[in-house]
Amino acid sequence: MTIKTIRSAFPVLARAHFHYLDNAAMAQVPGQVINAVAAHDVAARANVHRGLHDLARRADAAYEAARESVAGFLSARPDEVVFTGGCTQALNLVAGGLAESLGPRDMVVVSVAEHHSNLLPWLMLAKRRGFQLASIPVTWDGRLDLSDLSMIDARCKVVAVTHVSNVTGAVSDIPRLAEAAHAVGAKLVVDGAQRTPHGPVDPRALGADFYAFAGHKTYGPTGVGVLWGRAEHLAHLPPAAWGGGMVAGLDGETVDFLDPPRRFEAGTPPVAQAVGLAAALDWMRGLDWDKVRLHEAGLTRQLLAGLAGLDGIELVGPNGLEDRLPVVSFTVKGCHPHDVAHLLGEHGVAVRGGAHCSQPLMKALGLHEGCLRVSMAPYNDDSDIHALLRGLAEAVRVLR
Amino acid sequence: MTIKTIRSAFPVLARAHFHYLDNAAMAQVPGQVINAVAAHDVAARANVHRGLHDLARRADAAYEAARESVAGFLSARPDEVVFTGGCTQALNLVAGGLAESLGPRDMVVVSVAEHHSNLLPWLMLAKRRGFQLASIPVTWDGRLDLSDLSMIDARCKVVAVTHVSNVTGAVSDIPRLAEAAHAVGAKLVVDGAQRTPHGPVDPRALGADFYAFAGHKTYGPTGVGVLWGRAEHLAHLPPAAWGGGMVAGLDGETVDFLDPPRRFEAGTPPVAQAVGLAAALDWMRGLDWDKVRLHEAGLTRQLLAGLAGLDGIELVGPNGLEDRLPVVSFTVKGCHPHDVAHLLGEHGVAVRGGAHCSQPLMKALGLHEGCLRVSMAPYNDDSDIHALLRGLAEAVRVLR
Repeated sequence: MTIKTIRSAFPVLARAHFHYLDNAAMAQVPGQVINAVAAHDVAARANVHRGLHDLARRADAAYEAARESVAGFLSARPDEVVFTGGCTQALNLVAGGLAESLGPRDMVVVSVAEHHSNLLPWLMLAKRRGFQLASIPVTWDGRLDLSDLSMIDARCKVVAVTHVSNVTGAVSDIPRLAEAAHAVGAKLVVDGAQRTPHGPVDPRALGADFYAFAGHKTYGPTGVGVLWGRAEHLAHLPPAAWGGGMVAGLDGETVDFLDPPRRFEAGTPPVAQAVGLAAALDWMRGLDWDKVRLHEAGLTRQLLAGLAGLDGIELVGPNGLEDRLPVVSFTVKGCHPHDVAHLLGEHGVAVRGGAHCSQPLMKALGLHEGCLRVSMAPYNDDSDIHALLRGLAEAVRVLR
Repeated sequence: MTIKTIRSAFPVLARAHFHYLDNAAMAQVPGQVINAVAAHDVAARANVHRGLHDLARRADAAYEAARESVAGFLSARPDEVVFTGGCTQALNLVAGGLAESLGPRDMVVVSVAEHHSNLLPWLMLAKRRGFQLASIPVTWDGRLDLSDLSMIDARCKVVAVTHVSNVTGAVSDIPRLAEAAHAVGAKLVVDGAQRTPHGPVDPRALGADFYAFAGHKTYGPTGVGVLWGRAEHLAHLPPAAWGGGMVAGLDGETVDFLDPPRRFEAGTPPVAQAVGLAAALDWMRGLDWDKVRLHEAGLTRQLLAGLAGLDGIELVGPNGLEDRLPVVSFTVKGCHPHDVAHLLGEHGVAVRGGAHCSQPLMKALGLHEGCLRVSMAPYNDDSDIHALLRGLAEAVRVLR
């Protein structure tokens, strides 16, 4: 396996002068994923779970095989895998379900580093149900500050944190948070959106009770995501969306919901997208992740060194490689992040500039104009980093 | 335009001995939709609304062009079009939003003919918020019985009904329901899932306030749906799911939501699926619907006549062509619907048997074992009806 082999799987990377470093927003997609979706739509397109004809049976088989593939990626049981429309919907689903049993005496603990998708559901549900919301602060370099976890006390029923920051790339200490949550009987919800693009993960071994991720960030289609939950917790979680395919019986006002995972999959699920996601995860599982991680760390090191050599760059997040993934944010003195991102775009370098749907973190770190974010994937290489650093120097020259 | 031309657009229809009459569950997809999704994923795959690079601008343009295409299909304004993960999610979104201002003095009126997706959200939210739920009954042939609409009174704040029954194909008198709802200041939510596969629709002209439909039933991808709402109502509707891309500002617990439609599109939307849906609707808008409707009505007439010639068939729903679309359900005396559907499937004829996610209707019509459903699309032809009738006679011979 070489990076060249990896790159060759992605049709879009054949473009000239194209340096895609916006992977934390959306990863690119291998040809085999595109083909898997197209093939499904020709050979097995039918609704699932209700079919008595050939095409419907093929659809059922493809959909449940996709669930098994996701289960394999997560070292989990297939019935612990719920397909959703995306990571945000997965987080809304678990928040909505857990909030049903929360009231004014209860507390949910999030962190200052949460993406809005793992903050707003809790914030809005707190207003409705009257529970308290507390936030784990961050250190100067954007890591969760776990020095004082006393807020995870007897009132705390849920701890909801990101596995990896979408801004800083910092990896949260999930086992430690799990220990703190479980010590008081709270459940641990983990937003894995930024972790799953960098290899298979075992949420149960980490101590998570629920784990969510997105298809489009893991080299799969848009329109699909996953909520994993421990079977013993999913069994007691009420659904937060309702429709066809989720009830065993309905008699007047008495509703008898199906067992998980179908209880949580109201309506026609994103069948073809689940099949595409499975193809993406199967592609990922075929990579040598020890090698890929070394490669990604090498690019991060190269980028950090290059940024250190430029004038007026201030890192947002850890300045080293330990417990971080290849997501690097920074500000450029005297330059608005949007302007820099725009100029880089004109050089064929795709990065993101702004608040990254993480306004509490921006505020905590004093980043009133947001920051620039460079986010890498296994298919990135030296040329991408060189182009970025070259473009950055040029952008700064123009803007200052 | 001939039916042959229409058929030729659908790769799956090239299969031999294949008679797909399960369109109300999921329609097949034209090649150009498959290609549109694949092309998007190679040429414009990036996240939307936040992009400062070429690919992100292409994604934005493609996504907003898709919104305009949907708006054209609905004779609506683009900012009245909300992309969701499906019709069920669209109905949950509007129900969740409207329910925020409902309490014990309020009432929501649905009908006995609702698919679970337009019943369960209201039923579950009624339990939470304490509002009352009433149901418009059905006539012996499964139509909404509008002879007494006195339940739509001053307490009624929402009337939520299906445009076309997914079981009987009966078309509801939406203008009359709109008049009744608006006379008491209630809003009319219409489930258009079974109407949109049969041509463009103008929900505003019908009197609807909100209108939902599914991508996968309108020759588009799975994983996408639409909620249309009158701009003046969407402006006051609170969101029922929360995440990235929907807030203008977030300061402590103060959340400033974006204007519609983005307020309702939390998280990364199903971008490629929206593009595919637009391709499907564009394909639909290119058809001559006067001709297609005549064709579909001809098939329905043929089917009804054929069924009348078979022994022990009892129709579920209208026995004529007036105010009905090409969805025909029935029971076969002495034969379980599942068994018949299974045997038909072995003859290459895809139909559906069961309760069709419509248990209240099954109960009202005394269909304890459910019924068989034959649902047609513009690409069906005489050979499909012949194969069905032949297979049905054979299945009955085997089963009785």
